[in-house]
Amino acid sequence: MNTNDDTILTLKALADPIRLSILEFLWDPVSDVFRTEEGICAGDIVDFLDVSQPTVSHHMKILSAAGLVEAEKRGQRVYYECITERMDGVIRYLERYRQPTTPSLLDR
Amino acid sequence: MNTNDDTILTLKALADPIRLSILEFLWDPVSDVFRTEEGICAGDIVDFLDVSQPTVSHHMKILSAAGLVEAEKRGQRVYYECITERMDGVIRYLERYRQPTTPSLLDR
Repeated sequence: MNTNDDTILTLKALADPIRLSILEFLWDPVSDVFRTEEGICAGDIVDFLDVSQPTVSHHMKILSAAGLVEAEKRGQRVYYECITERMDGVIRYLERYRQPTTPSLLDR
Repeated sequence: MNTNDDTILTLKALADPIRLSILEFLWDPVSDVFRTEEGICAGDIVDFLDVSQPTVSHHMKILSAAGLVEAEKRGQRVYYECITERMDGVIRYLERYRQPTTPSLLDR
Protein backbone atom coordinates (compact mmCIF):
# COMPACT_ATOMS: atom_id res chain seq x y z
CA MET A 1 0.00 0.00 0.00
CA ASN A 2 1.52 3.32 -1.00
CA THR A 3 -1.17 5.67 0.29
CA ASN A 4 0.13 7.56 3.23
CA ASP A 5 -1.38 7.81 6.67
CA ASP A 6 -1.72 11.60 6.52
CA THR A 7 -3.97 11.35 3.45
CA ILE A 8 -6.26 8.81 5.16
CA LEU A 9 -6.36 10.87 8.38
CA THR A 10 -7.25 14.03 6.48
CA LEU A 11 -9.91 12.30 4.34
CA LYS A 12 -11.49 10.81 7.49
CA ALA A 13 -11.55 14.25 9.09
CA LEU A 14 -13.20 15.72 5.98
CA ALA A 15 -15.82 12.95 5.63
CA ASP A 16 -18.31 14.46 8.06
CA PRO A 17 -21.01 17.07 7.40
CA ILE A 18 -20.46 18.98 10.67
CA ARG A 19 -16.70 19.19 10.13
CA LEU A 20 -17.18 20.40 6.54
CA SER A 21 -19.58 23.04 7.84
CA ILE A 22 -16.99 24.13 10.42
CA LEU A 23 -14.32 24.45 7.71
CA GLU A 24 -16.70 26.42 5.49
CA PHE A 25 -17.50 28.72 8.40
CA LEU A 26 -13.84 29.22 9.38
CA TRP A 27 -12.97 29.88 5.76
CA ASP A 28 -15.74 32.32 5.12
CA PRO A 29 -17.77 33.48 8.13
CA VAL A 30 -21.26 34.10 6.80
CA SER A 31 -22.07 37.15 8.85
CA ASP A 32 -20.32 40.28 10.06
CA VAL A 33 -21.39 39.22 13.55
CA PHE A 34 -18.65 36.59 13.35
CA ARG A 35 -16.17 38.41 11.11
CA THR A 36 -14.12 40.26 13.73
CA GLU A 37 -10.51 41.39 13.95
CA GLU A 38 -9.83 38.69 16.55
CA GLY A 39 -10.89 35.82 14.31
CA ILE A 40 -13.25 32.93 14.98
CA CYS A 41 -13.35 31.36 18.44
CA ALA A 42 -14.94 28.10 19.61
CA GLY A 43 -17.95 30.03 20.95
CA ASP A 44 -18.62 31.51 17.49
CA ILE A 45 -18.72 27.99 16.02
CA VAL A 46 -21.11 26.86 18.78
CA ASP A 47 -23.38 29.85 18.04
CA PHE A 48 -23.23 29.46 14.27
CA LEU A 49 -23.88 25.70 14.11
CA ASP A 50 -26.22 25.67 17.12
CA VAL A 51 -24.57 22.57 18.53
CA SER A 52 -23.12 21.98 22.03
CA GLN A 53 -19.66 23.07 23.18
CA PRO A 54 -18.52 19.41 23.66
CA THR A 55 -19.63 18.60 20.09
CA VAL A 56 -17.57 21.49 18.74
CA SER A 57 -14.56 20.47 20.90
CA HIS A 58 -14.79 16.89 19.61
CA HIS A 59 -14.80 17.97 15.97
CA MET A 60 -12.08 20.62 16.43
CA LYS A 61 -9.79 17.97 17.95
CA ILE A 62 -10.25 15.77 14.87
CA LEU A 63 -9.70 18.71 12.48
CA SER A 64 -6.57 19.77 14.42
CA ALA A 65 -5.15 16.23 14.51
CA ALA A 66 -5.65 16.03 10.74
CA GLY A 67 -3.75 19.28 10.27
CA LEU A 68 -6.74 21.10 8.79
CA VAL A 69 -7.07 23.79 11.46
CA GLU A 70 -4.75 25.55 13.85
CA ALA A 71 -5.79 26.57 17.37
CA GLU A 72 -4.46 29.48 19.39
CA LYS A 73 -5.45 30.12 23.00
CA ARG A 74 -5.76 33.81 23.88
CA GLY A 75 -6.98 34.50 27.40
CA GLN A 76 -10.09 32.39 28.05
CA ARG A 77 -10.80 31.77 24.37
CA VAL A 78 -9.47 29.39 21.72
CA TYR A 79 -9.29 30.85 18.21
CA TYR A 80 -9.17 28.74 15.08
CA GLU A 81 -8.17 29.13 11.49
CA CYS A 82 -7.87 26.84 8.48
CA ILE A 83 -4.44 25.75 7.32
CA THR A 84 -3.95 24.56 3.78
CA GLU A 85 -0.89 22.29 3.61
CA ARG A 86 -2.70 19.00 4.33
CA MET A 87 -5.59 19.98 2.09
CA ASP A 88 -3.08 20.63 -0.71
CA GLY A 89 -1.65 17.15 -0.10
CA VAL A 90 -5.07 15.50 -0.34
CA ILE A 91 -5.97 17.39 -3.52
CA ARG A 92 -2.64 16.44 -5.11
CA TYR A 93 -3.28 12.81 -4.15
CA LEU A 94 -6.83 12.78 -5.57
CA GLU A 95 -5.92 14.61 -8.78
CA ARG A 96 -4.26 11.47 -10.17
CA TYR A 97 -7.80 10.06 -10.56
CA ARG A 98 -9.00 12.91 -12.68
CA GLN A 99 -7.69 11.97 -16.10
CA PRO A 100 -7.81 8.39 -17.34
CA THR A 101 -4.41 6.96 -18.30
CA THR A 102 -6.04 4.28 -20.46
CA PRO A 103 -9.15 4.31 -22.67
CA SER A 104 -12.36 3.31 -20.88
CA LEU A 105 -12.74 -0.47 -20.93
CA LEU A 106 -16.53 -0.22 -20.72
CA ASP A 107 -16.68 1.94 -23.86
CA ARG A 108 -15.14 -0.71 -26.12
CA MET B 1 -25.29 23.33 5.81
CA ASN B 2 -24.47 23.72 2.15
CA THR B 3 -22.17 20.75 1.65
CA ASN B 4 -23.90 18.19 -0.44
CA ASP B 5 -24.52 14.56 0.37
CA ASP B 6 -22.58 13.27 -2.65
CA THR B 7 -19.41 14.99 -1.44
CA ILE B 8 -19.73 13.42 2.03
CA LEU B 9 -20.50 9.98 0.57
CA THR B 10 -17.49 10.15 -1.75
CA LEU B 11 -15.15 11.41 1.01
CA LYS B 12 -16.31 8.57 3.30
CA ALA B 13 -15.65 6.05 0.55
CA LEU B 14 -12.16 7.50 -0.01
CA ALA B 15 -11.24 7.60 3.70
CA ASP B 16 -10.07 3.99 3.92
CA PRO B 17 -6.65 2.54 3.14
CA ILE B 18 -7.98 -0.62 1.43
CA ARG B 19 -10.34 1.35 -0.79
CA LEU B 20 -7.56 3.78 -1.78
CA SER B 21 -5.37 0.79 -2.64
CA ILE B 22 -8.18 -0.65 -4.78
CA LEU B 23 -8.55 2.66 -6.65
CA GLU B 24 -4.79 2.88 -7.18
CA PHE B 25 -4.76 -0.68 -8.50
CA LEU B 26 -7.74 -0.13 -10.83
CA TRP B 27 -6.19 3.07 -12.08
CA ASP B 28 -2.77 1.63 -12.70
CA PRO B 29 -2.40 -2.16 -12.37
CA VAL B 30 1.11 -2.71 -11.08
CA SER B 31 1.91 -5.82 -13.08
CA ASP B 32 1.34 -7.14 -16.59
CA VAL B 33 -0.19 -10.18 -14.90
CA PHE B 34 -3.22 -7.99 -14.17
CA ARG B 35 -3.07 -5.65 -17.18
CA THR B 36 -5.19 -7.58 -19.68
CA GLU B 37 -7.45 -6.63 -22.57
CA GLU B 38 -10.48 -7.62 -20.48
CA GLY B 39 -9.75 -5.23 -17.65
CA ILE B 40 -9.58 -5.83 -13.92
CA CYS B 41 -12.02 -8.27 -12.33
CA ALA B 42 -12.89 -8.85 -8.67
CA GLY B 43 -10.57 -11.90 -8.58
CA ASP B 44 -7.61 -9.75 -9.69
CA ILE B 45 -8.25 -7.38 -6.75
CA VAL B 46 -8.45 -10.35 -4.35
CA ASP B 47 -5.14 -11.67 -5.69
CA PHE B 48 -3.41 -8.29 -5.68
CA LEU B 49 -4.43 -7.20 -2.18
CA ASP B 50 -4.36 -10.72 -0.71
CA VAL B 51 -7.65 -10.18 1.10
CA SER B 52 -10.83 -12.29 1.04
CA GLN B 53 -13.50 -12.15 -1.67
CA PRO B 54 -16.14 -10.88 0.83
CA THR B 55 -13.77 -8.07 1.88
CA VAL B 56 -13.31 -7.01 -1.73
CA SER B 57 -17.10 -7.22 -2.36
CA HIS B 58 -17.77 -5.05 0.69
CA HIS B 59 -15.36 -2.34 -0.43
CA MET B 60 -16.46 -2.46 -4.09
CA LYS B 61 -20.07 -1.90 -2.99
CA ILE B 62 -19.02 1.24 -1.09
CA LEU B 63 -16.91 2.51 -4.01
CA SER B 64 -19.77 1.84 -6.46
CA ALA B 65 -22.37 3.54 -4.23
CA ALA B 66 -20.08 6.57 -4.03
CA GLY B 67 -19.84 6.70 -7.82
CA LEU B 68 -16.08 6.08 -7.84
CA VAL B 69 -16.12 2.79 -9.77
CA GLU B 70 -18.35 1.17 -12.35
CA ALA B 71 -19.02 -2.59 -12.42
CA GLU B 72 -19.82 -4.71 -15.47
CA LYS B 73 -20.76 -8.39 -15.25
CA ARG B 74 -19.41 -10.49 -18.11
CA GLY B 75 -20.10 -14.21 -17.80
CA GLN B 76 -19.09 -15.35 -14.32
CA ARG B 77 -16.87 -12.33 -13.67
CA VAL B 78 -17.44 -8.75 -12.54
CA TYR B 79 -15.09 -6.18 -14.10
CA TYR B 80 -14.41 -2.79 -12.59
CA GLU B 81 -13.05 0.52 -13.67
CA CYS B 82 -12.65 3.95 -12.09
CA ILE B 83 -15.00 6.75 -13.08
CA THR B 84 -13.99 10.33 -12.55
CA GLU B 85 -17.09 12.53 -12.29
CA ARG B 86 -17.56 12.25 -8.51
CA MET B 87 -13.84 12.58 -7.92
CA ASP B 88 -13.91 15.79 -9.97
CA GLY B 89 -16.75 17.04 -7.77
CA VAL B 90 -14.83 16.34 -4.57
CA ILE B 91 -11.67 18.02 -5.87
CA ARG B 92 -13.66 21.08 -6.96
CA TYR B 93 -15.24 21.20 -3.50
CA LEU B 94 -11.89 20.90 -1.67
CA GLU B 95 -10.07 23.38 -3.90
CA ARG B 96 -11.88 26.28 -2.24
CA TYR B 97 -9.69 25.58 0.83
CA ARG B 98 -6.46 25.93 -1.07
CA GLN B 99 -6.02 29.68 -1.23
CA PRO B 100 -6.78 31.85 1.77
CA THR B 101 -9.34 34.57 1.09
CA THR B 102 -8.14 36.63 4.05
CA PRO B 103 -4.67 37.16 5.56
CA SER B 104 -3.73 34.66 8.27
CA LEU B 105 -5.02 35.82 11.63
CA LEU B 106 -2.30 33.94 13.49
CA ASP B 107 0.42 35.78 11.54
CA ARG B 108 -0.62 39.21 12.81
